[in-house]
Amino acid sequence: MRVETTVKQFKELLEKMKMLEGALGTVYFDALTGAPRGGADSRAKRMGFLQAEIFSLLVSDEMKNCLDTLAAHEDSLDEITRAMLRETRRNYEKEANIPVETVRAYSELTSKAHIVWEDAKASNDFASFAPYLERIIAMKKEMLAYRGSDELPYNQLLDDYEPGQTMETLDVFFAKLKAAIVPFFKELKESGKQIDTNFKHHPVAIEAQREISDMLAEKVGYDLNRGMIRETEHPFCITIGGRDDVRITTHYHEMNFLSSFYSVIHECGHAIYEQNKKDEIAGTILDDGVSMGIHESQSRLYENVIGRSRAFWGYICDELKTKLPDQFAPVTADMLYTATNQVEASLIRIEADELTYPLHIMVRYELEKLLFSGDVDVYDLPRLWNEKMEEYLGITPPDDARGILQDVHWSEGLMGYFPSYAIGSAYAAQFWAYMEREMDVYGLIQKGEFAPITDWLKNHIHAHGLLYTPTELVHRIAGEQLNVEYYIAYLTQKFRGIYGI
Amino acid sequence: MRVETTVKQFKELLEKMKMLEGALGTVYFDALTGAPRGGADSRAKRMGFLQAEIFSLLVSDEMKNCLDTLAAHEDSLDEITRAMLRETRRNYEKEANIPVETVRAYSELTSKAHIVWEDAKASNDFASFAPYLERIIAMKKEMLAYRGSDELPYNQLLDDYEPGQTMETLDVFFAKLKAAIVPFFKELKESGKQIDTNFKHHPVAIEAQREISDMLAEKVGYDLNRGMIRETEHPFCITIGGRDDVRITTHYHEMNFLSSFYSVIHECGHAIYEQNKKDEIAGTILDDGVSMGIHESQSRLYENVIGRSRAFWGYICDELKTKLPDQFAPVTADMLYTATNQVEASLIRIEADELTYPLHIMVRYELEKLLFSGDVDVYDLPRLWNEKMEEYLGITPPDDARGILQDVHWSEGLMGYFPSYAIGSAYAAQFWAYMEREMDVYGLIQKGEFAPITDWLKNHIHAHGLLYTPTELVHRIAGEQLNVEYYIAYLTQKFRGIYGI
Repeated sequence: MRVETTVKQFKELLEKMKMLEGALGTVYFDALTGAPRGGADSRAKRMGFLQAEIFSLLVSDEMKNCLDTLAAHEDSLDEITRAMLRETRRNYEKEANIPVETVRAYSELTSKAHIVWEDAKASNDFASFAPYLERIIAMKKEMLAYRGSDELPYNQLLDDYEPGQTMETLDVFFAKLKAAIVPFFKELKESGKQIDTNFKHHPVAIEAQREISDMLAEKVGYDLNRGMIRETEHPFCITIGGRDDVRITTHYHEMNFLSSFYSVIHECGHAIYEQNKKDEIAGTILDDGVSMGIHESQSRLYENVIGRSRAFWGYICDELKTKLPDQFAPVTADMLYTATNQVEASLIRIEADELTYPLHIMVRYELEKLLFSGDVDVYDLPRLWNEKMEEYLGITPPDDARGILQDVHWSEGLMGYFPSYAIGSAYAAQFWAYMEREMDVYGLIQKGEFAPITDWLKNHIHAHGLLYTPTELVHRIAGEQLNVEYYIAYLTQKFRGIYGI
Repeated sequence: MRVETTVKQFKELLEKMKMLEGALGTVYFDALTGAPRGGADSRAKRMGFLQAEIFSLLVSDEMKNCLDTLAAHEDSLDEITRAMLRETRRNYEKEANIPVETVRAYSELTSKAHIVWEDAKASNDFASFAPYLERIIAMKKEMLAYRGSDELPYNQLLDDYEPGQTMETLDVFFAKLKAAIVPFFKELKESGKQIDTNFKHHPVAIEAQREISDMLAEKVGYDLNRGMIRETEHPFCITIGGRDDVRITTHYHEMNFLSSFYSVIHECGHAIYEQNKKDEIAGTILDDGVSMGIHESQSRLYENVIGRSRAFWGYICDELKTKLPDQFAPVTADMLYTATNQVEASLIRIEADELTYPLHIMVRYELEKLLFSGDVDVYDLPRLWNEKMEEYLGITPPDDARGILQDVHWSEGLMGYFPSYAIGSAYAAQFWAYMEREMDVYGLIQKGEFAPITDWLKNHIHAHGLLYTPTELVHRIAGEQLNVEYYIAYLTQKFRGIYGI
């Protein structure tokens, strides 16, 4: 068979998978945006069916033949087909050898574990969740073994979310972060600086908040013709089939307008990434984010680096005052800037400020490493969690619900995933530093001119989708790799300014 | 192979089709309820893909083997499997022999024709649409020929929407209707009765109308736990995967609350049918309506027979006065009853009152028969339309946009479909007459007790889904078939009362 024929067959298979993924995405989005509760069982069945169909295409004999044939002709393939081959092979190797019964058993386990975790968190009862966690880790290891990789289990998991990162690179990353941020945070706490945050909880009508969301989306460049903002319990961003249908959601709280304000900017960052893929890959399997960390770098760049900058508040405060004169009359840009950058040791990761946030991730990372090296008993996790929180943040959780049990991820088998959050913040600072070499970024923001920033991100990151690996992509920008120094410099400089230390 | 094995394989194929249909339904619903416009092309592609997947399962060799094997053992099958076989064979025979190129050419033709029709209607230019209509009819005949049926083409089309009805039965149906209603309508017009309809166009806030919709849904028995009311340009009802997810939509007009009021009751009628299928068929291909006409009988029964009755207004007027005292204070149940039953010769089918409505359908039926017998040139249709409107309703459309061009159906190839609307109204009156033998229906409505009525419909119609053919289903209820006399009696009695003649 000629290679061209195989390429055609290969792309048709991928196209089919993409079509089914688009359908699955629609069913998922529908399920979270008001679909009748009574239909939950049949929706779950439908989603399971679509997932199984996608899986069976991925591990089909036809796909195997395509992968084998194309591997022998890799050099003759164009760049896009080569990237498709790389990504598909990656997924194939991850999935193809796991026995169906194991996949099913794992799926049942995590479904059950999720419910157990919810109850355990509600009743502050880690012991009831511990056996499930133990079993999940055992099954994860069992499934990883089918990949036949030489890498350590936890390195394989890290690679799933952030290809190219390993314990070796992340140990350095977190060690530097710890050495810089833990003492810096102590210094900052001792400054005694008081920040007025009272106005954060003045009421802003939901309808007004909806208008603010639309305004923010438009300002930062989220195209609502190819997107929409819906309301759900937990905010998220979803791409349905590719760059032309990228949706975000938020949740409005009348007494906390900043909650939706920042969730919208955050999700806009994800959405702008998704919408800005170049024509050549639009609608293909490469029309996707390159990694969790890079994706998160975009949401955090918009949310924190832009959205929590003095320049941004300098610009947007006037817009808010025009839109809602009554609520915002007594507020200044400086008040908003300091109030949205107040640093505090807090128990809950998702409520943490920009500075202490990575310390929460560091705790998870260290515990996950121990879990997969087998050097810890799951029953010791609560104690270890609390000790590390005390060491890095100076607080000890009063209970496990606000400690080790706070996050859903482990109950769903998402392990190796947490580090992406910190990697994302670090990449955001790194990309920002590159941009600062080329333009007056804060000057642009102060004038409300976001287009040059978004264009830079589009050209260097968004446009390429999955065409390059994350390490290739980052290397192409400025010839280096993930470098935590930018992040440390960004954090210390910013918070020295705010806290006057 | 044992029959049991084939039955299992057959049901698995049907289950797959049902899963894909559920996904398709979700994508379709999403497309009509605010999906990003920019994603329209990729959504159209996704829907085309899902349709093609469903089609390929239906006409697959595997399916053919199942159908052949099971046909030889039909007597040994249980009632449900036999019905599944009947319905699948029916669909298989309709579709399997049409060449793929023909299906594609037809799909392209109707896509184009739809756009041409829109323009033709907007610019009142039938001549531009005529060649498309001609071509659609030719292609419909060509495709029907592949079925290898001895029936006349138009009879085959009638059978698609209303199995069991033919030109023979419908000629009698419409002849009787014409003989009774045309002179009755003239008599009624000459009565000179004046009806106060002014209040119909008093403003009712959209938010209040939404509350009225929820109230109506709850009263008549549409289960919102397994359904929802969304807002779209044109109201519709859609079932996603089966009885546990049945959604309706409506459109609110501040200056015309009766528009959404009746569209909601109408769609509730469809939805209640869909929600009330019995356990044994839930989620299977039999979890569906039995025919267009029977489906329409349910929506029209709720909308007209119940919703436009004096008893209903007697009950619901008080509810409205409680909910919206300001708007409804000056209105009485009698005013609402007569105003929502005002009879008028009107140009537009969908705006027609209950009495003149079937005359619009009769015009379409007569023209469709001519089109498929070849006894008319499409270019003569506008003239024929106008002549028939004058004969039956006493009005001549001032232009084709409000005449022959008003309805979308033909541009989409929906021919043989219109009669279902009149059949639906007639069945509604017939079922109502049966119910009246068993209970004091109007007395129940007057008290707001809809459950016994819905239960009757559930037991006799809804529960069975596609288990029986429409003619079997109707015969099981009272031993007779579609009988237009009930409809004529219902209409004449009702409007004699209102118009005092």
